[in-house]
Amino acid sequence: MIKQYYMPTQIIMGEDCVKSNSSEFLKMGKKALIVTGEHSAKKNGSLDDIINVLSSNGQSWALFDKVMSNPTIECVYDGAAFAKSENVDFIIAIGGGSPMDAAKAISLLACQDIPEDELFSGQYSDEILPMILLPTTAGTGSEVTPYSVLTNNRAQTKNTISSQMLFPQIAILDAKYMENLPKEITTNTAIDALSHSIEGMLSLRANPITDSIALESIKRISRCFESLKSGELTKMQRFELLYASTLAGMVIANTKTTAVHSMGYSLTYFHDIDHGRANGLLLGEFLKHIEKSWPDRVCEILSAMGLSKVNEFISLLDELLGEREKLTDEQIEKYASITAKSGNVKNSPIIPSIKDLIEIFNNSMNK
Amino acid sequence: MIKQYYMPTQIIMGEDCVKSNSSEFLKMGKKALIVTGEHSAKKNGSLDDIINVLSSNGQSWALFDKVMSNPTIECVYDGAAFAKSENVDFIIAIGGGSPMDAAKAISLLACQDIPEDELFSGQYSDEILPMILLPTTAGTGSEVTPYSVLTNNRAQTKNTISSQMLFPQIAILDAKYMENLPKEITTNTAIDALSHSIEGMLSLRANPITDSIALESIKRISRCFESLKSGELTKMQRFELLYASTLAGMVIANTKTTAVHSMGYSLTYFHDIDHGRANGLLLGEFLKHIEKSWPDRVCEILSAMGLSKVNEFISLLDELLGEREKLTDEQIEKYASITAKSGNVKNSPIIPSIKDLIEIFNNSMNK
Repeated sequence: MIKQYYMPTQIIMGEDCVKSNSSEFLKMGKKALIVTGEHSAKKNGSLDDIINVLSSNGQSWALFDKVMSNPTIECVYDGAAFAKSENVDFIIAIGGGSPMDAAKAISLLACQDIPEDELFSGQYSDEILPMILLPTTAGTGSEVTPYSVLTNNRAQTKNTISSQMLFPQIAILDAKYMENLPKEITTNTAIDALSHSIEGMLSLRANPITDSIALESIKRISRCFESLKSGELTKMQRFELLYASTLAGMVIANTKTTAVHSMGYSLTYFHDIDHGRANGLLLGEFLKHIEKSWPDRVCEILSAMGLSKVNEFISLLDELLGEREKLTDEQIEKYASITAKSGNVKNSPIIPSIKDLIEIFNNSMNK
Repeated sequence: MIKQYYMPTQIIMGEDCVKSNSSEFLKMGKKALIVTGEHSAKKNGSLDDIINVLSSNGQSWALFDKVMSNPTIECVYDGAAFAKSENVDFIIAIGGGSPMDAAKAISLLACQDIPEDELFSGQYSDEILPMILLPTTAGTGSEVTPYSVLTNNRAQTKNTISSQMLFPQIAILDAKYMENLPKEITTNTAIDALSHSIEGMLSLRANPITDSIALESIKRISRCFESLKSGELTKMQRFELLYASTLAGMVIANTKTTAVHSMGYSLTYFHDIDHGRANGLLLGEFLKHIEKSWPDRVCEILSAMGLSKVNEFISLLDELLGEREKLTDEQIEKYASITAKSGNVKNSPIIPSIKDLIEIFNNSMNK
């Protein structure tokens, strides 16, 4: 069993920390590629803050703002071609998981010619552009993980590039960019982070160091449950959720995720259900399944949330997620079959069978 | 205020993990310098395990087993000269804080000619030998910190080399080497780790990420309090204390320590009081001092230990530490004056005055 902990990214945090850490940007090189989506970084002030720091440092930059939700393989090859043509020294990603995950792949592909069918092979040479990642949602944890999750249309699911080279040099945490995040995104991303910490505790690679970090992350998210229901979050709670999501990222950087994430990828790929929401829809029934053979562990997780029964957790998720999407039996069988082939599903001491996966999908979506 | 988290050391953990991670040693180079003390690594089996792995890897090694408790500047210059003469590629340290801290300085001095009066300057070039650190006590956390604490006879105290280069490449955690550790060392080192996490929470550089790690570390140590009193620890508790001490190291790697450590250095330098014990003697009264202006924080720390009053904590420490050494007024004044000049003392939002330091020394030692 692999019992390791490694997370070499430098984390800088606090209000206005982009501006107060301008020297960290200066060390990275002369020209940056800013990788982001079409809108949010412009609206929430993060893009302006980054550009101001680069300008005052005398650094130049190019903008790649074409990253869509659940970025595709095509998108990252486009970004890498642009990075090469602009001759940039480093990458700055701004956004949720999509721009950050895309930026990691772009950093790799800007330095190495990797054919598309070898993109997920894990076999790369050592070159990569250094990265600064600035999350503007509190969920993905991508700013401290060595993963880039991309939509793979050939495999009809998401696949993951995993390499220690993908750890960013710097993660920058400032919740001020999240102040006007809509209620739905806030909730879905918080559930994503919660799912990371819970799945991390159910992983084969869990260890007392990742458990320690996961438990604190779960506690910190749980303290915001009531505010998530109302959608009224204080500035302090926004920071709390951001730190908790980074802690959860530190967990999965070491433990990876489990069946919940694999199952969720089908809900996102075929039904366009948001990633965090997809995890939330499945998490309760997955815990019920795990509880049958590992009750102590589930008890530890529930107790960190101040709960004692999985059904209480499911009720809470019901309140946060609202009405659930329905699936046909045929769809469920297909998604269970795709899930069973994924690596994540084997990443727990309790590996659900196809029958188990069908039951979890069914009880989660069609109850 | 600096709000950062950085800890790039790879942690490998679990029973027999030296043997099961032999490939990690192989990556480091052809020849190792093993840095340790005179006895313990030979007795607890760790030196044999390391030598077996190196031999089976076909790697050669030289042994520097001259590190004393609270290593001196002379000792690390001797070690560095030996490392140079043996032409080693990397360093393996085995032991408590003394061999690990010495090894860090030796790694630096083996690559750079630094005059003694510039050793603590923080100004070094980039060369250093890579390091694997294997703690055989559960206290110092040195395996995950960028510090080397050395006895400086000129300054009549301990001084610290601090540089991100000093982060070891790999920390190896296996509590089997601690099974026969005497009660006194087990207790003193556990108190040292506890002091790291508590001081980390009282530091100017504390942040929600270090707080999360500190709280879990405090909880895990507290769960062993009763067994520490009796001196009867299970294998699982030995591992729990080791993980907790590494977590505490991850905290101070970012927060540094505070006045407790500076004050303790005088007790060690002038009275040969063990480092962990010295911290334990002072910690309760220091918390009382902090409580006057930061009661919420002290409450949070106490509550992680399952306590509600500082006096309960002091009673617990009394049980663990036994009779306290006495100091004269003259001694206390001298030590308060040395402490006031140290960097650590300014590393908290509440900076004790000379008068405060005298009071803390007095109430701690002569009550």
